[in-house]
Amino acid sequence: MDDCIFCKILNGEIPAKFIHSDGDTAAFYDVNPQAPTHILIIPKEHIASSAEVDSQNSDVWNKILGRAVQIAHELNLDKDGYRMVINTGEQGGQTVPHLHLHLLAGRNLGWPPG
Amino acid sequence: MDDCIFCKILNGEIPAKFIHSDGDTAAFYDVNPQAPTHILIIPKEHIASSAEVDSQNSDVWNKILGRAVQIAHELNLDKDGYRMVINTGEQGGQTVPHLHLHLLAGRNLGWPPG
Repeated sequence: MDDCIFCKILNGEIPAKFIHSDGDTAAFYDVNPQAPTHILIIPKEHIASSAEVDSQNSDVWNKILGRAVQIAHELNLDKDGYRMVINTGEQGGQTVPHLHLHLLAGRNLGWPPG
Repeated sequence: MDDCIFCKILNGEIPAKFIHSDGDTAAFYDVNPQAPTHILIIPKEHIASSAEVDSQNSDVWNKILGRAVQIAHELNLDKDGYRMVINTGEQGGQTVPHLHLHLLAGRNLGWPPG
């Protein structure tokens, strides 16, 4: 998508601090971190939001959640714990219309979650 | 698991207000809701946390996220938006050691997410 900030990050037009990239997913640090560790995991395919995931692309969940858990393990975040958050739409707090998972860790994450 | 509160909900020992149940997943209302709509989606298989998902059970993500998105759509939550949250471990705020996804909607969900 020409006007998608995350697609521009994926194609190098906008810089980001990547921690992972493979054929299906990419992971990079959030520029406005909300915790000592705050990483975004996204599918490389442009999917506008969780509400756009259907039978044609449903495997995206295994890919981005699986990747997030793997990154958490590699960074030793699973020792103390972490939170994964996916925002959809305005009340959900979604600010970029490209499906993404927030992986947050490094402090006690409060309740309610926003 | 004999001492797992969610397994007890699944087998009827502890009551809950179910919104969905199939062979793989169940969904019921959180007893301490943090938003006008607050539903938990869980795998029926006892998996202690996201950190316990591996190649043997990785399809659990498609199942619980897919179910959450479907429920959000059926309840018309995708019109205004919703947030999905998975807590892992102590700092993540996980209080029940059975993998579960929080689906929250019905108000503006703030940032940071906890």
